[in-house]
Amino acid sequence: MSGERRGFLKSTFLAAAALATGPTLAASAQQAVGDPMILEPRPWSTKLGYPVAFKPYGQPSPFEANLQRRQSPGLTQTTQASVSFAPLQGFFGIITPSGLHFERHHQGWVDVDPEQHRLMVNGMVEEAKVYTMDDLMRLPSVSRIHFIECGANTGMEWGNAAVPTVQYTHGMLSCCEFTGVPLKVLLDDCGADIKNAQFVLAEGNDGSSMTRTISMEAALDDVLVAWGMNGEMLRPENGYPLRLVVPGVQGVSWVKWLRRIEVGDKPWNSKDEASHYVDMMPDGIHRQYTSIQECKSVITSPSGGQALMGKGFYNVSGLAWSGRGKIKQVDVSFDAGRNWKTARLETPVLDKCLTRFNIDWVWDGSPVILQSRATDSTGFVQPRYRQLREVRGTRSTYHNNAIQSWQVAQSGEVFNVQMD
Amino acid sequence: MSGERRGFLKSTFLAAAALATGPTLAASAQQAVGDPMILEPRPWSTKLGYPVAFKPYGQPSPFEANLQRRQSPGLTQTTQASVSFAPLQGFFGIITPSGLHFERHHQGWVDVDPEQHRLMVNGMVEEAKVYTMDDLMRLPSVSRIHFIECGANTGMEWGNAAVPTVQYTHGMLSCCEFTGVPLKVLLDDCGADIKNAQFVLAEGNDGSSMTRTISMEAALDDVLVAWGMNGEMLRPENGYPLRLVVPGVQGVSWVKWLRRIEVGDKPWNSKDEASHYVDMMPDGIHRQYTSIQECKSVITSPSGGQALMGKGFYNVSGLAWSGRGKIKQVDVSFDAGRNWKTARLETPVLDKCLTRFNIDWVWDGSPVILQSRATDSTGFVQPRYRQLREVRGTRSTYHNNAIQSWQVAQSGEVFNVQMD
Repeated sequence: MSGERRGFLKSTFLAAAALATGPTLAASAQQAVGDPMILEPRPWSTKLGYPVAFKPYGQPSPFEANLQRRQSPGLTQTTQASVSFAPLQGFFGIITPSGLHFERHHQGWVDVDPEQHRLMVNGMVEEAKVYTMDDLMRLPSVSRIHFIECGANTGMEWGNAAVPTVQYTHGMLSCCEFTGVPLKVLLDDCGADIKNAQFVLAEGNDGSSMTRTISMEAALDDVLVAWGMNGEMLRPENGYPLRLVVPGVQGVSWVKWLRRIEVGDKPWNSKDEASHYVDMMPDGIHRQYTSIQECKSVITSPSGGQALMGKGFYNVSGLAWSGRGKIKQVDVSFDAGRNWKTARLETPVLDKCLTRFNIDWVWDGSPVILQSRATDSTGFVQPRYRQLREVRGTRSTYHNNAIQSWQVAQSGEVFNVQMD
Repeated sequence: MSGERRGFLKSTFLAAAALATGPTLAASAQQAVGDPMILEPRPWSTKLGYPVAFKPYGQPSPFEANLQRRQSPGLTQTTQASVSFAPLQGFFGIITPSGLHFERHHQGWVDVDPEQHRLMVNGMVEEAKVYTMDDLMRLPSVSRIHFIECGANTGMEWGNAAVPTVQYTHGMLSCCEFTGVPLKVLLDDCGADIKNAQFVLAEGNDGSSMTRTISMEAALDDVLVAWGMNGEMLRPENGYPLRLVVPGVQGVSWVKWLRRIEVGDKPWNSKDEASHYVDMMPDGIHRQYTSIQECKSVITSPSGGQALMGKGFYNVSGLAWSGRGKIKQVDVSFDAGRNWKTARLETPVLDKCLTRFNIDWVWDGSPVILQSRATDSTGFVQPRYRQLREVRGTRSTYHNNAIQSWQVAQSGEVFNVQMD
């Protein structure tokens, strides 16, 4: 059952009844008002329910148990250096439920004791310092809603339409409200030499000691040293008790279990920015330090693996985002890109944040191909695969932001297909 | 330990060291850089961690186990008709973690099977209809972030400062992103007689069959029939699979397990709007149908039950909201209301939504009284207790939006006190 857009999952008795082709909302009210489902008391109306605080920390309904983050079998050699994908097909709005935030670990996740955790700031600073969590949480904090996307998201789609569902094509994507101290405050506190230093290094505290170079420009702009996520402390698998938040930049730079910031005057060229997270260009040269996640969108409902319940009215819904600013417009095509209609954007529309779009659609029962195309506040338009490949070739893994196509078959089943 | 603002909970070794009195961020960096806590590898840095999807639906860190919603012992005669309060003292930003959303049930909460759930719309309509969840989730949906506050929140404070912590003074308050179909769409679909009908009734499906009258003006404005909360399906204790969202209005009208909307031409005067949720005025008359939650704010950190770690810099943080619009300004006083400073508002600042405020403070170690005072976009200013009582007397339970005072003792301990 699960929350994977209930309406698209099953061919119920509704399928036969939903014959509307006009613009009215005629999918509704398939049941007679005298139906016994209405007139007979439901079991839950006739008894005393569970008390308050029966669950001091609440959980989803048992009927939603199928909505999980999932590994892609065989994607990596070990499950500690792997990915679990967020089930975008079941999400609403822009906030990612913390329990379903995607995971990308390089040596597994760890349960860090916040009392023992420390953050060092060193390098080109007047005074190197070590902060406890208590120290950090006294400092001026800010809260911002931002998306995080792995640079490898949609990576398996470079060659062709390789995976069946939006969970696996686009599920290395999440969006949360983060709270923390601006990195700038710590750099000021330590007297960072911002005239001569052009970079900072962020280092994590798990076994892989993930290290990533961040430009000083970003560090002084909107980068946060964050402990809060969606109103509570970070989850362990998302870096508890401390992670870097680098808005607009690929997830690998959002270093988890953050233990050190080093200020320096050149990029570190660490293993995770030299041999990984580089873009293989058509001429065989690796492009390095391409960290901004460019403007992108995807229809999440309907999407691959779902099945429409028959002709009639549907709310087509999806997500759009840009690492360079706000989403300005999302257009949706129901004919593989020949014609486009502008979708409604849900508010708030925020900087470097997911934007939810919705658009009305009446399906006439014939096969169609659905696409979405986002435009951001810089005027950048999400490319077609043909346009992306003209520049980038076909040998990349990272930074695929091409237009996604979903084919709706006459049966109502939805498939991942790739259009030029 | 828990996330109850780690920094305020404990007197650690930091307490002795944090002697800063100047405006710099000198609370930081209490540890020498050569400290063994930094130089020795931590256990979690030396091993392989947990694999991805080890928890297909993630949970908070075990170190945060103390952050729970809690009953107020003895508040009600049964735990099924009771309240659990949200731990505001541990929250960041504006999003309430779904697992810590406050609860107010009238006959306990129930596990509703979404396949069996129905919503009827009847009364003054052209055609009464019954909707399945599948029907509803095909319709045009919107997503909005709104606060929900029980009308009885802060109710025990009418007489005096009765409860020790912000969890119990203000914890019937939460804020989530809700997704659903505008009620207006359903009223249109059924041909509601909006010329003659002035009200709708919302009826729940638990044992209490909660019924509440909503004005047609609100019904046609921003009321939602919602299934989504913070990106996933509603939690069972918050009305899964369907609840009404009535922005700006007290929580009791946000009917959970929503099963029926009736369109009518006069208010229903149901038990929950005749004998409960009415305001006892000074003349002994009950004021009825006062459902808007007026402009209000509270400092959540530091707050009652916490203890400052000594003199020095603190980030004072809190929440502000108004059922009539946006928060325009929040002022904070460190001297029981004699002088006020304007706090920073975190973005986004949204309509009928929590707004997080922060303000810098250097505590000199002497006893003080902290207050916050919100102003909304209508120009309404949150009242002092004296002002509230001039109009409302002292016998009410509901709709107390007076300024909250926290007393910081010389010891650093924080107490709930009431000022005129």
